[in-house]
Amino acid sequence: MSFKLTILGCSSAIPTVNRHPTAQLLNVNERFFLIDCGEGTQVQLRKYQLSFQRINHIFISHLHGDHYFGLIGLLSSMHLLGRNKELHIYAHEELKQIIDLQLNASNTELNYPLFFHILPKEEETILLEDNNIKVVNIILDHSINCSGFLFEEKRTPRKIIKSQIEKYNVPFDKINSLKNGVDWINQQGDIICNNVLTTENSLPNRYAYCSDTRYQETLIEKIKNVDLLYHETTFMQDLEDRAEQTGHSTSVQAATIAQKAKVKKLIVGHYSQRYKNLDSLLEESKSIFTNTFLSFPGMTIDF
Amino acid sequence: MSFKLTILGCSSAIPTVNRHPTAQLLNVNERFFLIDCGEGTQVQLRKYQLSFQRINHIFISHLHGDHYFGLIGLLSSMHLLGRNKELHIYAHEELKQIIDLQLNASNTELNYPLFFHILPKEEETILLEDNNIKVVNIILDHSINCSGFLFEEKRTPRKIIKSQIEKYNVPFDKINSLKNGVDWINQQGDIICNNVLTTENSLPNRYAYCSDTRYQETLIEKIKNVDLLYHETTFMQDLEDRAEQTGHSTSVQAATIAQKAKVKKLIVGHYSQRYKNLDSLLEESKSIFTNTFLSFPGMTIDF
Repeated sequence: MSFKLTILGCSSAIPTVNRHPTAQLLNVNERFFLIDCGEGTQVQLRKYQLSFQRINHIFISHLHGDHYFGLIGLLSSMHLLGRNKELHIYAHEELKQIIDLQLNASNTELNYPLFFHILPKEEETILLEDNNIKVVNIILDHSINCSGFLFEEKRTPRKIIKSQIEKYNVPFDKINSLKNGVDWINQQGDIICNNVLTTENSLPNRYAYCSDTRYQETLIEKIKNVDLLYHETTFMQDLEDRAEQTGHSTSVQAATIAQKAKVKKLIVGHYSQRYKNLDSLLEESKSIFTNTFLSFPGMTIDF
Repeated sequence: MSFKLTILGCSSAIPTVNRHPTAQLLNVNERFFLIDCGEGTQVQLRKYQLSFQRINHIFISHLHGDHYFGLIGLLSSMHLLGRNKELHIYAHEELKQIIDLQLNASNTELNYPLFFHILPKEEETILLEDNNIKVVNIILDHSINCSGFLFEEKRTPRKIIKSQIEKYNVPFDKINSLKNGVDWINQQGDIICNNVLTTENSLPNRYAYCSDTRYQETLIEKIKNVDLLYHETTFMQDLEDRAEQTGHSTSVQAATIAQKAKVKKLIVGHYSQRYKNLDSLLEESKSIFTNTFLSFPGMTIDF
């Protein structure tokens, strides 16, 4: 299983020549999930040679422009380039009307089916689930309705220990149930425990995306032990009050969440444009949670 | 009087790393007019160090995304950077609802007054007029409602010939009327013609922006003798049928309009992405109208 995240943009609010608003691409076994889509995201995808026609699911955390102003352009380009396969958008309900109005204004009927899934405002639920992955929303505490997303790989089938199968003379038609963790009962009625016959496959990956949000301790349980946490860090710790007022977090707050949730790795982003150099911000986070990294456009994290 | 046009983007349809959708900035005596605003325009303005807070008037030709998807981001950035002076948008009426919806979705009340002026769909009228400039819309023939724009400097006052004023003993309080072209009648009742006492100041500049449009001969009278014509040239001449179907023009058609309207200079743009090299397209235009130039991002034409 491959599980790989590419950062396309990680600045807050205002795009500049070198700072791109929020967008990330998650590749789960060659299935591509776009998370947020600030202005210029389609060009960032091209820059990093990531085909946007392979994206089938787009998750928009909230309707501040730095998280979605690039979406309508991306949808249009997909159309103009001849896409015909389904696309699914998960976002707050106002976005549907915004998209529809813009398509109507240009007399555009998309060549491809566009499914719009409304994010609940208060409830956490499974947004998408199949044999390989489950995605749930996480209610964040921002200045408008805002969702984080937890991407969880499904547990892959257990691995058969061939020598044990032969030793216990397990018939071929029982192999699938063994892979799914079922014990085997032989003709004599003896129970052979599954872990005698199989081993655990690699542990499934879990990625939590949390932008934009105030510091909220209720997050900790929800993202416990994830392999990777992206947590917004708009401000350094001296601007804790400003973070609270504007619905954002500080370097220390993000790291505290990571530490308390015992995540494996933290990447921070959504930096305020006031910070030209991010070394001190990183140092503040690392003082609480050592395994912290700055996100930057083009960064790829292979799980 | 300065009259200067900067091309910010001149590609059609789909933005890429090196191709930017349509946007232009016209500087008339340090008053800045933005014409169209494709995705990424705010970053292009930054790249060429053109302060977007000095723009007070934005003209949007039509509601295909490559001409306006960058507008909401620009308006938001103006707000976030503390603008408080008026901004005027001239566009087709659907755009107002699109902007309002997006501002509402993010709970944004702009810090500055935003005036929306609806472009007429069939009628040509003065959109803006003051002592220095007049802007009128030009109805174009595209696949949806589309406007070109004609920017005309006002005729500046005539220049006094000091020696003649002394010779004819013209009193000081008549100077202003002389500057405005009025003849002078002396105490003896003799008429002294204005052109004996004054000279014409420099001729006012005129710029016509025509994108997107089919070839239409009715344009010719409207843009007669302009100093500069920007005319879209989406296709080369072999795709004349495709141009007709999609509401666009070819290299030869744009140049024919320029030639028949006796404009001083033609710049072409809005190239289809199929053309990687534009030399042949330029040659086709130049075969009809020699004084043709390719537009490119960063190009500045000083009138």
